[in-house]
Amino acid sequence: MGTVSKTGKSREPRRDGPRRTLIVRRATEIFEQKGFAHTTFEDIAAAVGVKREAIYYYFRDKSEILFEIIKPESEYLLQSALRIRGLDIDEKEKLMLFIENHMMRFNPNYLEMAIAVRELSGKSSEPKLLSLRHIWKRYTNLWILLIREGQEQGRFPADLDPKLVAFAVLGMCNSASSWFDPNRGVTIAELSRTFVELVVNGIASGESTRATAQASGFHEDR
Amino acid sequence: MGTVSKTGKSREPRRDGPRRTLIVRRATEIFEQKGFAHTTFEDIAAAVGVKREAIYYYFRDKSEILFEIIKPESEYLLQSALRIRGLDIDEKEKLMLFIENHMMRFNPNYLEMAIAVRELSGKSSEPKLLSLRHIWKRYTNLWILLIREGQEQGRFPADLDPKLVAFAVLGMCNSASSWFDPNRGVTIAELSRTFVELVVNGIASGESTRATAQASGFHEDR
Repeated sequence: MGTVSKTGKSREPRRDGPRRTLIVRRATEIFEQKGFAHTTFEDIAAAVGVKREAIYYYFRDKSEILFEIIKPESEYLLQSALRIRGLDIDEKEKLMLFIENHMMRFNPNYLEMAIAVRELSGKSSEPKLLSLRHIWKRYTNLWILLIREGQEQGRFPADLDPKLVAFAVLGMCNSASSWFDPNRGVTIAELSRTFVELVVNGIASGESTRATAQASGFHEDR
Repeated sequence: MGTVSKTGKSREPRRDGPRRTLIVRRATEIFEQKGFAHTTFEDIAAAVGVKREAIYYYFRDKSEILFEIIKPESEYLLQSALRIRGLDIDEKEKLMLFIENHMMRFNPNYLEMAIAVRELSGKSSEPKLLSLRHIWKRYTNLWILLIREGQEQGRFPADLDPKLVAFAVLGMCNSASSWFDPNRGVTIAELSRTFVELVVNGIASGESTRATAQASGFHEDR
């Protein structure tokens, strides 16, 4: 994979092929390690084992690569949320699955990249970035809709603003990108369970009536 | 206030005085409007109505001004959290007050600036930035301690990691800096109430089985 043989001479950038896939994969790794802002086109080229120009053959700039990483993830997230919404379970259970789905798919590294895209897209009206924004908007709207339906069914407090609730929960989930470190012994699954517990049952649910105290494998060394 | 008369000739930057206060106040306004990253030293000088050099007389760079804005806010936040912790009320009520206090004091504009400071301090080991970090660390630790004490008193679920809970709640609160717009009809008080409701009682508290609904100042209009 370290050497290069120039292939293809059409003027239009190639849309597919193993080289393109390899660039995206290596770029993902470097963005995760160094962060999008601190990664240069040269870094990506070096990781693929090609010259800078070989990357230009596929991508105009690093934000185009970033877009290619984020878009399928975002679409996947939206599709799975749509599937959950269609399940024959109540809104409380759907909300739990929404949180789990979000945390499982949208890991901290992707989140960091998504934030980079959001910052880029604030300044740009490029069709690609707009289409990504559109996916995110649809996704956020699904959360709002779910909260509203739960209120209509009498499962969630009716006096809360469904939009505020949706943004609060998504904000809680997404904030993990700035403080969560998977190398410190806590898993995404554990994080996800904490969010579900907080948002769905609330922390005061622990008062006397609860029986789940020893349910998990978590131990404090205090 | 628009004109300048040079006062003082000591080589040490002056520590106090109305001019210094004015610079900090104007800089706060510009950081809020334009964001810290997009504000130049010239912008601040223009807003104060002085030349760039007059600002240098008090501050070496704009991050020194930012620090001066954030530090008293952060100290105030810490002190009020310490006061709440000392109150003769249970941990659930303390947590509610912690959230309200955080949201009232640490408004989205300050948060944005705090994030800028955090990014700066990641790169720097300047004593001033370190002292700010120290305040934040003490503040965060108060949250963790409160959750732990609530668990020990049997008020919060014992199987949750107090650190994860503290970071989740603070993350939810702080995420508002990226999406909350006070000009859209929702107040910080309403936002704060939503966070309290979610974190303390949980969204499923709307369901018949719960008895805590009227325990707090919270009323459902359903």
